[in-house]
Amino acid sequence: MNTKAVNLTEALASFDDVYSPRIVARMNDYDVRIAHTLGEHVWHVHEDTDEFFLVLDGRFDIAIRDAAGDETTVVLHKGDTFVVPRGTEHKPSSPGGSILMFEPSGTLTTGDRHDGEVPANVDSTTGHELS
Amino acid sequence: MNTKAVNLTEALASFDDVYSPRIVARMNDYDVRIAHTLGEHVWHVHEDTDEFFLVLDGRFDIAIRDAAGDETTVVLHKGDTFVVPRGTEHKPSSPGGSILMFEPSGTLTTGDRHDGEVPANVDSTTGHELS
Repeated sequence: MNTKAVNLTEALASFDDVYSPRIVARMNDYDVRIAHTLGEHVWHVHEDTDEFFLVLDGRFDIAIRDAAGDETTVVLHKGDTFVVPRGTEHKPSSPGGSILMFEPSGTLTTGDRHDGEVPANVDSTTGHELS
Repeated sequence: MNTKAVNLTEALASFDDVYSPRIVARMNDYDVRIAHTLGEHVWHVHEDTDEFFLVLDGRFDIAIRDAAGDETTVVLHKGDTFVVPRGTEHKPSSPGGSILMFEPSGTLTTGDRHDGEVPANVDSTTGHELS
């Protein structure tokens, strides 16, 4: 049986890429992922799943757009948790930080659909293994 | 739409009970729960679900028992993550700390079955609302 813990600080120190999540744990059919955050993500939506965020360090903002097209930005600091409900258009941004996410394995960072081009600083991925 | 973040430090400061998880977030049919930890929990098993732990502060140990009855203790400190696989008998203990857990809504703190009496310092619950 695996008896090895994964430390989040060490895991975050093992890579530099931003918006390129690493999978630190799997439980049932869910992933626990961590990512460095910096700059603007892309507007996207996960139609079939909520998405849980915990800010590990720094600041991480989530702009959300309601059905009428009105935007609100949720500002998150270290220790803050927030759930983006399924079907909600959202765009993360950050002046620098790191986050932990819970989501079903296979969830794409850029959602089921996204607005325009994926920026160069955003990795469109279902998560990478820790190396 | 809810745009209110829940801060883990504030949430932990809002109650004192040990081994009595509060639900800080719900995503899909899962809960994100936090708990203060102190003393011995009870040997128990979740037959149908893995259980994810993140140590937020202090130290939190998880004794696990394999099919042959042999015990190993996984020692966890702040920032450490660990998944107890479904069907694995385990018993948490702690000299003092706090944890975050991710598990299906309705998961009982004392499992589908447990050894002997539930100690007085362990709340057998599916989690409480933050007040």
